[in-house]
Amino acid sequence: MLDRIDHVGIAVEDLEAALALHRDVYGLELAHRETVGSQGVEAALLEAGDAHVELLAPLSPESPVGRFLARRGPGLHHVAYRVADVEAELERLRAAGLALIDEAPRRGIRDSRVAFLHPSTGGGVLTEIVQPAEVAA
Amino acid sequence: MLDRIDHVGIAVEDLEAALALHRDVYGLELAHRETVGSQGVEAALLEAGDAHVELLAPLSPESPVGRFLARRGPGLHHVAYRVADVEAELERLRAAGLALIDEAPRRGIRDSRVAFLHPSTGGGVLTEIVQPAEVAA
Repeated sequence: MLDRIDHVGIAVEDLEAALALHRDVYGLELAHRETVGSQGVEAALLEAGDAHVELLAPLSPESPVGRFLARRGPGLHHVAYRVADVEAELERLRAAGLALIDEAPRRGIRDSRVAFLHPSTGGGVLTEIVQPAEVAA
Repeated sequence: MLDRIDHVGIAVEDLEAALALHRDVYGLELAHRETVGSQGVEAALLEAGDAHVELLAPLSPESPVGRFLARRGPGLHHVAYRVADVEAELERLRAAGLALIDEAPRRGIRDSRVAFLHPSTGGGVLTEIVQPAEVAA
């Protein structure tokens, strides 16, 4: 089951400008920065309670986040829920009839294992499930 | 300062269908339902760690969420950060140069006091600050 938000993903054009807003103006603490090649992004995680805000700048215009920015502009991109077992959860959600973007988990930020669900059966929300590295089976 | 996500707001066309997805399929626990006339929505809050998912169905097509749905369809609508003193925080953010939607706080769900910041200076994200009723000064 999904029971907590892991992070909220925000598509940004300029990671430094987005950090200036979220860290320096809002006051969120920067937790981590990483280039996640598999997702075509440079990412920054900020502490936000027991969740994070994930700022995502595209590595190229052809990446998924690059295409999102071209289509919709910067803004809310996805919501991610933390799960204990990403394979089992993905199979459960598939069996419930949800459309998947990732048929199998792949590597996410900080060695997490992640899978994206398609917005078409997610109420228009690009939804991710995340198994953090530290609770890997 | 902002240091934690209070909730993620999702615009929905059909609250029962959105509950069927978030509660019955995802497994998030329903915490609260309320018609918030001042925001023109019927809302449902679901538990998601120390944050909530807030499902928002418009009371009319002319309400802000109704107009959002007509323009962009269902999906991620806003992110809200919890604050201890909404007036002081609003003043701090105004002084930092952010554009405000609400010049003064107004009543939100569960007798919280809330204010929205304009996406134009929020990286394209409609951003809310929330002072819960239970930590009111």
